[in-house]
Amino acid sequence: MKRAISVGAALAAIGLFSAWAARAQPPAPEPGDGPRYSNGTDLIRPANYREWVFLSSSLGLTYEASGSASNRPPTFGNVFVNPSSYRSFMQTGKWPDKTIFVLEFRQSETAASINKNGRFQTTLAVVEAEVKDSRFPDGWAFFNFGSGPPGPAGVGVPPLSGDRAAPCVECHTQHTAVERTFVQFYPTLFEVAKRLGTVKPNYTDP
Amino acid sequence: MKRAISVGAALAAIGLFSAWAARAQPPAPEPGDGPRYSNGTDLIRPANYREWVFLSSSLGLTYEASGSASNRPPTFGNVFVNPSSYRSFMQTGKWPDKTIFVLEFRQSETAASINKNGRFQTTLAVVEAEVKDSRFPDGWAFFNFGSGPPGPAGVGVPPLSGDRAAPCVECHTQHTAVERTFVQFYPTLFEVAKRLGTVKPNYTDP
Repeated sequence: MKRAISVGAALAAIGLFSAWAARAQPPAPEPGDGPRYSNGTDLIRPANYREWVFLSSSLGLTYEASGSASNRPPTFGNVFVNPSSYRSFMQTGKWPDKTIFVLEFRQSETAASINKNGRFQTTLAVVEAEVKDSRFPDGWAFFNFGSGPPGPAGVGVPPLSGDRAAPCVECHTQHTAVERTFVQFYPTLFEVAKRLGTVKPNYTDP
Repeated sequence: MKRAISVGAALAAIGLFSAWAARAQPPAPEPGDGPRYSNGTDLIRPANYREWVFLSSSLGLTYEASGSASNRPPTFGNVFVNPSSYRSFMQTGKWPDKTIFVLEFRQSETAASINKNGRFQTTLAVVEAEVKDSRFPDGWAFFNFGSGPPGPAGVGVPPLSGDRAAPCVECHTQHTAVERTFVQFYPTLFEVAKRLGTVKPNYTDP
């Protein structure tokens, strides 16, 4: 009987400790919120990236040269990052291995509802991703999921390569404030990087 | 000894079950991610709203009449909602009691870094909030945290009232697609509301 009580007490203690631990700790990184692949390097489009941490958005911030896109309404670009990598960056100013950024472009509209001047977001235009992962030759890779709905479950798209990857690599090497990421466009993160000294030495404030 | 083994087995089983349960369940709603008050109805500015679920952003979508703000650069408006209410909405198309929206306005810049045409977000301009809470007479309240840094910890701001609240209430009653919220500007949520039939009967698509 005494033994039975001590078993019960042990279980109760474990339960109490678990409940306390769950409350006392900051929100734990979601298990497995990093990149997932098929065929080793084909990135599977994250199903829940809209619930990841939002870094910033822009309007009309295209890769195209001035004027070439002037006849189309500008698109919004929303950037999301997996939560565990976000928390790591806020403490270190650096991106851990297995960081995944999703860049979501959306069409914009104006003169609808109460809005007479500005622009707001509408339908999805295209989904892209940038990944930091030591499995890739130089540690980073870029992906384009296109404009359609997500593909078959569990099937990824291959990293951009050759001529399609070159402009990504060049721009993300020469013009980024922190590692290969445009942290200068993410105001809350840029402050962290400046405070922790992780802005590239050759980066000059715009 | 046999008893000791069964205690060990029980603990191991609990550990395995806990690990399984933690992996099998969707991310749990953060405990206490709803509104917090001082003095009963003064809303405390949420410290971590940037880690909440992003609903959408807009550029130049002001409350002001056409032309009155034309000499100033447009501001971005980012909308965040507490995660547990987001998950509830995605299942029901309705906002549960204790839902809190944070509307964050940020200055915009252009012609910096690689960006020659569009606009991107910079410094914080103002933080506002809208809350659904049965403690308020009509179930909703609006708050303005101003443009400065967060105030003293644990001290809230009172809900807007009288002439300051009237335009909020009027606009959020007459022009909103779902309850008192501009779900028509949150594309991923608008689809859910249309599918679940929670768009107001008198709302007409812009």
